[in-house]
Amino acid sequence: MQYPGIVTLDDLSNRLHDFAAARGWEQFHTPKNLVMALSGEVGELISLFQWLTPGESAGVLSDPERKAEVLDELADVMIYLVRLADVLGVDLLAAADAKIDRNEHRFPATTTG
Amino acid sequence: MQYPGIVTLDDLSNRLHDFAAARGWEQFHTPKNLVMALSGEVGELISLFQWLTPGESAGVLSDPERKAEVLDELADVMIYLVRLADVLGVDLLAAADAKIDRNEHRFPATTTG
Amino acid sequence: MQYPGIVTLDDLSNRLHDFAAARGWEQFHTPKNLVMALSGEVGELISLFQWLTPGESAGVLSDPERKAEVLDELADVMIYLVRLADVLGVDLLAAADAKIDRNEHRFPATTTG
Amino acid sequence: MQYPGIVTLDDLSNRLHDFAAARGWEQFHTPKNLVMALSGEVGELISLFQWLTPGESAGVLSDPERKAEVLDELADVMIYLVRLADVLGVDLLAAADAKIDRNEHRFPATTTG
Repeated sequence: MQYPGIVTLDDLSNRLHDFAAARGWEQFHTPKNLVMALSGEVGELISLFQWLTPGESAGVLSDPERKAEVLDELADVMIYLVRLADVLGVDLLAAADAKIDRNEHRFPATTTG
Repeated sequence: MQYPGIVTLDDLSNRLHDFAAARGWEQFHTPKNLVMALSGEVGELISLFQWLTPGESAGVLSDPERKAEVLDELADVMIYLVRLADVLGVDLLAAADAKIDRNEHRFPATTTG
Repeated sequence: MQYPGIVTLDDLSNRLHDFAAARGWEQFHTPKNLVMALSGEVGELISLFQWLTPGESAGVLSDPERKAEVLDELADVMIYLVRLADVLGVDLLAAADAKIDRNEHRFPATTTG
Repeated sequence: MQYPGIVTLDDLSNRLHDFAAARGWEQFHTPKNLVMALSGEVGELISLFQWLTPGESAGVLSDPERKAEVLDELADVMIYLVRLADVLGVDLLAAADAKIDRNEHRFPATTTG
């Protein structure tokens, strides 16, 4: 996946902040509540894959109706994750990058030849 | 949250791709399996917040040990979400942005004054 | 909660087995798939509680419409948990009872006076 | 699965009530918190199945170490589900049975011959 940069993570985070503020929803956006919302959306995502074989899951986007559902749920998961990180003041990219550093040590790549 | 751009979403997505390829893990990274892994990590994240009041959850990062745990789990959630999107060929930023467009219509902001 | 014994756990487990068999669904009911279905239903349950305060959550059944939704999702969670245990051949009551034995040692009750 | 009736659902529910009361934990056992705890345990359960093929998942209990982990997580899920139902005053068996009644109408069994 290449991200073309038309919308950035900053744009998304700011837009979600403004969306909540414009509706008076900031009072509901505690980390506890947002973690629950994130979990609920992941539950909806998982329900789209539960009866598929692993092979079928790889081709799930070839059906237009199913594609729209998967994109919709992935969007919701991304939205709540970015909103949660914003409320906590966490840089998701830096946190993920640092975690991969640690994973490089935990799971060294096997080199052959 | 402002993302400084030192690590981009493209960087993260590419690094995760290379990490899996270097370990021969691509065979396990079907969408079905990655959705499960994402769900498992969200479960670990939620367990850090389950006994906190909403107010306590807002200050969760003030404890250094708890902060490290929350960052670690947020990183894992981000990692599997970005990896899943890469395997599916989905642009998370575009999907989330389009979803907010739809949400603007579903939940119009109340304007006063 | 007192369970009146009109429907037993055996009855439920057997009925779910027969329900799946009568529809040719046993092929889909692998432990992997059933764990996903369980997780999806828990996600629907959590979405009913995500914006409630802890106090509001305690009174959630006083609203008839909300009560019906909560009962419906609790039922779905129970259904997939019992079905999963049946497919695996696990006695949920014995497993839970043995776990509480272990928890008694991990978290000794404080006795005073 | 046949449940031998040595431990009943009433026994389990009562034991969980007493366990919480003896430790002063009832204050934490709001429905909102218990739903989160349930979700966290399902996340741990799902992590045991995420890299298995559906076929491997069917034989997961043949490995003694893995069996102990699966039983432990199934127990935790059952514990929080039964505790949540107790706090809400919901009869899980009746709720599940009524849901299957509704499912019989939604998904009629195909009869042949």
